[in-house]
Amino acid sequence: MLKNYFPILEWGKAYSGNTFGNDLIAAVIVTLMLIPQSLAYAMLAGLPPQVGLYASILPLVAYAIFGTSRTLAVGPVAVVSLMTAVAAGDIAAQGSFDYYLAATCLAFISGLILIVMGLFRLGFLANFLSHPVITGFITASGILIAAGQLKHILGVGGSGQNLIEIAQGLIPQLGKINLPTLVIGGFVIVFLVLVRARLKGLLLWVGLKSRGADIIVKSSPIIAVIITTLICRVYGLDSAGVRVVGSITGGLPAPVMPSLSPELWNRLAGSALLISVIGFVESVSVAQTLAAKRRQRIVLDQELIGLGTANLASAFSGGFPVTGGFARSVVNFDAGAETPAAGAFTAVGIALVTIYLTPLLFYLPQATLAATIIVAVLSLIDLGVIRRTWIYSKSDFAAMFAAIIFTLSAGVELGILSGVALSILIHLYRTSRPHCAIVGQVPGSEHFRNILRHKVVTSPSVLNLRVDESLYFPNARFLEDKVQNLVAENPAIRHVVLMCPAVNSIDASALESLEAINARLRDSGVTLHFSEIKGPVMDQLQRSHFLEELTGKVYLSQYDAFSDLDPQAARTALAR
Amino acid sequence: MLKNYFPILEWGKAYSGNTFGNDLIAAVIVTLMLIPQSLAYAMLAGLPPQVGLYASILPLVAYAIFGTSRTLAVGPVAVVSLMTAVAAGDIAAQGSFDYYLAATCLAFISGLILIVMGLFRLGFLANFLSHPVITGFITASGILIAAGQLKHILGVGGSGQNLIEIAQGLIPQLGKINLPTLVIGGFVIVFLVLVRARLKGLLLWVGLKSRGADIIVKSSPIIAVIITTLICRVYGLDSAGVRVVGSITGGLPAPVMPSLSPELWNRLAGSALLISVIGFVESVSVAQTLAAKRRQRIVLDQELIGLGTANLASAFSGGFPVTGGFARSVVNFDAGAETPAAGAFTAVGIALVTIYLTPLLFYLPQATLAATIIVAVLSLIDLGVIRRTWIYSKSDFAAMFAAIIFTLSAGVELGILSGVALSILIHLYRTSRPHCAIVGQVPGSEHFRNILRHKVVTSPSVLNLRVDESLYFPNARFLEDKVQNLVAENPAIRHVVLMCPAVNSIDASALESLEAINARLRDSGVTLHFSEIKGPVMDQLQRSHFLEELTGKVYLSQYDAFSDLDPQAARTALAR
Repeated sequence: MLKNYFPILEWGKAYSGNTFGNDLIAAVIVTLMLIPQSLAYAMLAGLPPQVGLYASILPLVAYAIFGTSRTLAVGPVAVVSLMTAVAAGDIAAQGSFDYYLAATCLAFISGLILIVMGLFRLGFLANFLSHPVITGFITASGILIAAGQLKHILGVGGSGQNLIEIAQGLIPQLGKINLPTLVIGGFVIVFLVLVRARLKGLLLWVGLKSRGADIIVKSSPIIAVIITTLICRVYGLDSAGVRVVGSITGGLPAPVMPSLSPELWNRLAGSALLISVIGFVESVSVAQTLAAKRRQRIVLDQELIGLGTANLASAFSGGFPVTGGFARSVVNFDAGAETPAAGAFTAVGIALVTIYLTPLLFYLPQATLAATIIVAVLSLIDLGVIRRTWIYSKSDFAAMFAAIIFTLSAGVELGILSGVALSILIHLYRTSRPHCAIVGQVPGSEHFRNILRHKVVTSPSVLNLRVDESLYFPNARFLEDKVQNLVAENPAIRHVVLMCPAVNSIDASALESLEAINARLRDSGVTLHFSEIKGPVMDQLQRSHFLEELTGKVYLSQYDAFSDLDPQAARTALAR
Repeated sequence: MLKNYFPILEWGKAYSGNTFGNDLIAAVIVTLMLIPQSLAYAMLAGLPPQVGLYASILPLVAYAIFGTSRTLAVGPVAVVSLMTAVAAGDIAAQGSFDYYLAATCLAFISGLILIVMGLFRLGFLANFLSHPVITGFITASGILIAAGQLKHILGVGGSGQNLIEIAQGLIPQLGKINLPTLVIGGFVIVFLVLVRARLKGLLLWVGLKSRGADIIVKSSPIIAVIITTLICRVYGLDSAGVRVVGSITGGLPAPVMPSLSPELWNRLAGSALLISVIGFVESVSVAQTLAAKRRQRIVLDQELIGLGTANLASAFSGGFPVTGGFARSVVNFDAGAETPAAGAFTAVGIALVTIYLTPLLFYLPQATLAATIIVAVLSLIDLGVIRRTWIYSKSDFAAMFAAIIFTLSAGVELGILSGVALSILIHLYRTSRPHCAIVGQVPGSEHFRNILRHKVVTSPSVLNLRVDESLYFPNARFLEDKVQNLVAENPAIRHVVLMCPAVNSIDASALESLEAINARLRDSGVTLHFSEIKGPVMDQLQRSHFLEELTGKVYLSQYDAFSDLDPQAARTALAR
């Protein structure tokens, strides 16, 4: 029982020196990757650089204790940082103390939401974000984030929560571009893109293994950080207008009590819920992919608690919302991390950086951080999925498209909400007009198939109608109309048989419709029968008076029904 | 084609003298019923009495031309009047000109919404209001309306949009009760209740037919109006504090141009949409019930146009939102109305009252109108349905209960919205954990049934899993977990067969899950097969690469799959 809530008790027991060695190597590599990322995502969230470091210490320790993934690397991630900037920006101006307060408060509320969802086993709520909507949202967020970082590459001001606002902010400033900044930013982008495209092949050619080559490629941002910081320091580029990170408050984070103001909570609750759900979905999909490769299991509800405590830890140590990151987790996995202890060791690494190395980061150009963000988020853009979704399903594509368009034009929150709303509406619309097939008996068998697709035997006096959907309120009236029209068109019909192998439930609205169908058919001298009603559905119908009022019978199989209502036709068909 | 949009062209052709006589008699009876109702519902909507009369003239003519029900009686109804009061009350104070402007504007916007829905064939949207939610909403609205009218019976002030506000408004005023008002109100309530409970039996006993007795019972409010007006006039009760209707602006309504202010439209649009949908659903359910009794058909999309033009007509003649009323339509039907012409004749009757009889209504006590409203709405409260829903389905009951509680405690708009939201959420939750059954072969047949409910033959190396739900985003992850757990628990499994007779669609999220299941099973040496995939689902799968990646086969029937994967078990089972 206790093990369920503290997964550390399970893997901790079997911890060996060999495991320690592997975890430590992975932790060193992830730390090198996390230094620039934590600074960059703090900048993306509109927060001072040390806040990114704070969000990369205690949250990792909390997740190591409560999380169920062995290799998930928790910390600041791009999309959640953008959402934090949007939500906190609604409360106060970037750079103000209230803005910082709102960001830590977001982590606090998110943490509570995630833990409550975990305790009440509400992890299933994440399923309402369909894959296409998530993909569309992440793609559009990537574009939005990249566009938002352009100002740092160009060395100008500007802000905005959607593409239009960002463009409106940038265009008037195009005359004020700072050339040294642009050179640094451009150099880092080209360097990172080239490394990604070519370095791995080169390393493989000189004899490195694929996994090792991958790790070196993923660590390239720290090299860009070191080079550009040195250049900036040596040539004094900060006095030439290149904005640098500047002095970072060093030392470990002091304990912080997040704001409990009801008004602030009220204004942040909706955004915190979105951040929680998006962060959870992103994190779980990475964790599950990696766990499957080693036959390990992720427990969804405990994952919520793991991420929730990570966010609480972030809030109490002055950080902002965190979740499991895709790229870092893959590196952690590839570098050989075996247990969540690797995350805790990474936390120690970042803590050491916070204590000893912050002065070295003074001359780190913001353009370098912006360039690492841009290159990182461009990998989020997956046009292949968009194309495949278009081919597979137009309705899924519509939901994805709505998520993309609304995210780009109206910002992240409206973007994700419109995608979810549309995917639910499309589902309801589709089930509101269910597929119905008039069926007949396949000659020489007891099977019944669609008369339009197969050559089958039918009877003029018996209408066999198969309903391919559960019966519930959105489609209750549809069936009423369907049966009424079919009977009106065929005066010879004396019996209607509803064949229900695909009817998984009948709700109260559908029951009323069935009662109406039964009564109307009775008034016109037609009896209503059912066949192949499933066990759970039959159990439920027996709790109403419907079966007593039913003019006809309930048959176990469609063949039983047909051979009872038109014995000759059924016999003839079977004999053929 | 033209006939589709102008149903009058169809029934008008066959119009005879006999039909005219029947329609005329029905019109006289409905007029007598409509006079007190139109005044009462105007009072309920917070509008001057003549506005109720205006809403009972042109809208009836418009519906007679465009509506498809032969017997629906259109005009002001209780629930829509309450919703009008709530929406207009958000704009201005009752009694102000802006309030009246808002009410006519609501009719205008509602009319446009209904017509647009009709032209774009969006009538199906009404299906998203499940029967239990509607029933719960109407019941709670009835209670709310009755509570709101108490102030008129007691002769005090007060207002409020939910039970709590109404009680808070009434309680401080209990010391100021006006006794003559209370006597009149109490008398009318007792009179109407007694008439309903006893008069019909009495009339049947003296030899009247059931239909005739019903009509007389339903017309009793006009008798109460005449008696109490005379008493009030003779004893001069208006000077004793009994509030009377007072002077009504006589004469036909002048043409009105409803407000086109974008700000007003913006503030009213949401309420107008709710009024349109609720009014449409109420109206259609009456119309369909009555049409079914005479084997006539209601065309949903044309009904939208009929009700839409009725509301436009109301707006342009200074009225407020209207729809088909339950009680009046039943009386109209029972009184022998044969065509919508009866509605037009009723309009003439109300027009004559508006021109000639308004002075006679000066001394009509408001308490009389309040009493007729209370008795009318109490019949909307249907506790039997609530009990039956509880027995049949707890989830339907939950949605109904939410509609009732939120309507009573937070008002009509939040009430209906919470009911709809909850019924959709419950549906999504239910389908997110679909029923899955492990199946085996029924001995001596080619059928496969649930191993828990039937004695069947299984194979240790083949897992036959029947999924009883369409596969789409809310349940995609569920299936992943289900298969992964089952395979992890049974190491002997070499083949998994997903049996899909109840899978009516597979969306892009579910496809990704199936790909993940296929890949994970492949990695652990298990092949994945499908059986009984339906035609439309197969068509869709063929538009993806899934079938090429699939490790196993797609079988036409479950028996084919089982006899291929474990021939011996299948043969043995068939032979038994």
